Amino acid sequence: METIKVFCPATIANISCGFDVLGVALDSVGDEMVVQKTSVKGIRISKLEGQDLPMETLQNVAGVAGLALLEASDYQGGFEIEIYKKIKAGSGIGSSAASSTGAVWAMNELLGKPFSTLELVKFSMEGERLASGVAHADNVAPALFGGFTLVRSYDPLDVVTIPSPNELFATVIHPQIEVKTSDSRKVLKNNISLADGIKQWGNVGGLVAGLFKDDYDLIGRSLEDHIIEPIRSILIPGFDDVKAAAIEAGALGCGISGSGPSIFSFSKGGETAQNVGEAMKRIYQDIGIDFDIHISKINSEGIKMM
Amino acid sequence: METIKVFCPATIANISCGFDVLGVALDSVGDEMVVQKTSVKGIRISKLEGQDLPMETLQNVAGVAGLALLEASDYQGGFEIEIYKKIKAGSGIGSSAASSTGAVWAMNELLGKPFSTLELVKFSMEGERLASGVAHADNVAPALFGGFTLVRSYDPLDVVTIPSPNELFATVIHPQIEVKTSDSRKVLKNNISLADGIKQWGNVGGLVAGLFKDDYDLIGRSLEDHIIEPIRSILIPGFDDVKAAAIEAGALGCGISGSGPSIFSFSKGGETAQNVGEAMKRIYQDIGIDFDIHISKINSEGIKMM
Repeated sequence: METIKVFCPATIANISCGFDVLGVALDSVGDEMVVQKTSVKGIRISKLEGQDLPMETLQNVAGVAGLALLEASDYQGGFEIEIYKKIKAGSGIGSSAASSTGAVWAMNELLGKPFSTLELVKFSMEGERLASGVAHADNVAPALFGGFTLVRSYDPLDVVTIPSPNELFATVIHPQIEVKTSDSRKVLKNNISLADGIKQWGNVGGLVAGLFKDDYDLIGRSLEDHIIEPIRSILIPGFDDVKAAAIEAGALGCGISGSGPSIFSFSKGGETAQNVGEAMKRIYQDIGIDFDIHISKINSEGIKMM
Repeated sequence: METIKVFCPATIANISCGFDVLGVALDSVGDEMVVQKTSVKGIRISKLEGQDLPMETLQNVAGVAGLALLEASDYQGGFEIEIYKKIKAGSGIGSSAASSTGAVWAMNELLGKPFSTLELVKFSMEGERLASGVAHADNVAPALFGGFTLVRSYDPLDVVTIPSPNELFATVIHPQIEVKTSDSRKVLKNNISLADGIKQWGNVGGLVAGLFKDDYDLIGRSLEDHIIEPIRSILIPGFDDVKAAAIEAGALGCGISGSGPSIFSFSKGGETAQNVGEAMKRIYQDIGIDFDIHISKINSEGIKMM
């Protein structure tokens, strides 16, 4: 195989109580990439459609992640990458992670899979470092492993896959406002109260147990965030109303996707997820902020060939 | 049925990363109680053997928990309770919880089970309030539900049961020194760093996932505590050496049981749990501190009739 076309899913990270550790891959929204082996050493981004992003290898997250893989490989050739962005940069649903992971996953396939999925996570994290200054793994891990993933530890890197019930759907609304990842990092406090910490790890335990048990109510009850959401939601106009409307429409829970501004909800069943989407939409229609909306099953495979 | 004899298991709370939320019931160590219906309204502790504890109903955790149940019941009679303590008070393996839960569980049986297990948890928490000043649930929940339990939330009270692999064993060593629960609460700080919080909830997620997946290695890797153990272990002479010896002998992980001074380890298989016990013993033999040691399977039923 010399060329491969892949679907690179959008992802929700920082799932409520699971700040910095819990992420999930979506199914109906993602980028497409075509990756081709070439005889020229190195990585070349030959096409980039859909978003205005740098094409220079060292300025592009797919380029940087790809170079990390190449460096660890004994392959003497190179790769050409075409990127068709469907995920908007800065939307909070893992745009950079989709490009980083798509590149390294495709390259690994073309080379006969010399690297484990965990190693691909590490290469992709270099793309995240370029995008946000922090080599976080909570978007790239679900994009590569599929489903829900928990980044238990960074040193050493330890990614745990978590199953989820079949009828779990995500609804994501992306209000067209800009919240920089670096800004939403800045508003966080360095310290939290022990009491809030206990609530948070109780909820993480509950959410993980709920996903294993197919217990939708427990999943819903555990989708609480006493630490990050109260601070970051201030940066997202309409957040409280959107959340209230989503819950009212039947969502199990609702929170900030990544560092925002996208807002996600989880629902049992596609119909409820649609109703939740309608309810979330209405808030931004009333406020007068443009938005995109995505309704998706959980993507249990992650990146896949097209 | 007018009389019932029950086994009330010892429990490990504050399991490493799961401070205040994660507990587990033991199988081979616990109290025995005999509870009998009487025509006299109220609760009378008619016998208390094995420990020097108050027998006045309002000063005894079983009495107080029992009164909480009676108050919620329309039963017009009362109960007489005999308590045979095998668990030492102040050992850190749920001595008060065993008495509180044993009383209310037995009373509920004798009354034809009018109350749910969650309601029994609430009654038992009144005993914990008497014992330590805090109505915590992380010992009483596993004693009543069996196995591992997660107290996801206190308000409203939400207890999640978590399965565990068949070959998981606990080794608990109780050095004969006194650490008051109130003192070990006092040394805790009100604030923690967000970075430590993230590690902690990553580990809670990992531990819960490891228990569901029967993944002993993941359980072991997740038995980390960056917040409480570094502070509280200073109150337990020999802690670091005992932990190192347990890990060296093959334990998956090791931590403080409850608020100490007992130290627990988890191991895969009874033989390893025995070896771990030998290794832990040697440390206190060398230091010259007396100890009790318990090796137990996980008790998946909780309290049971004898």
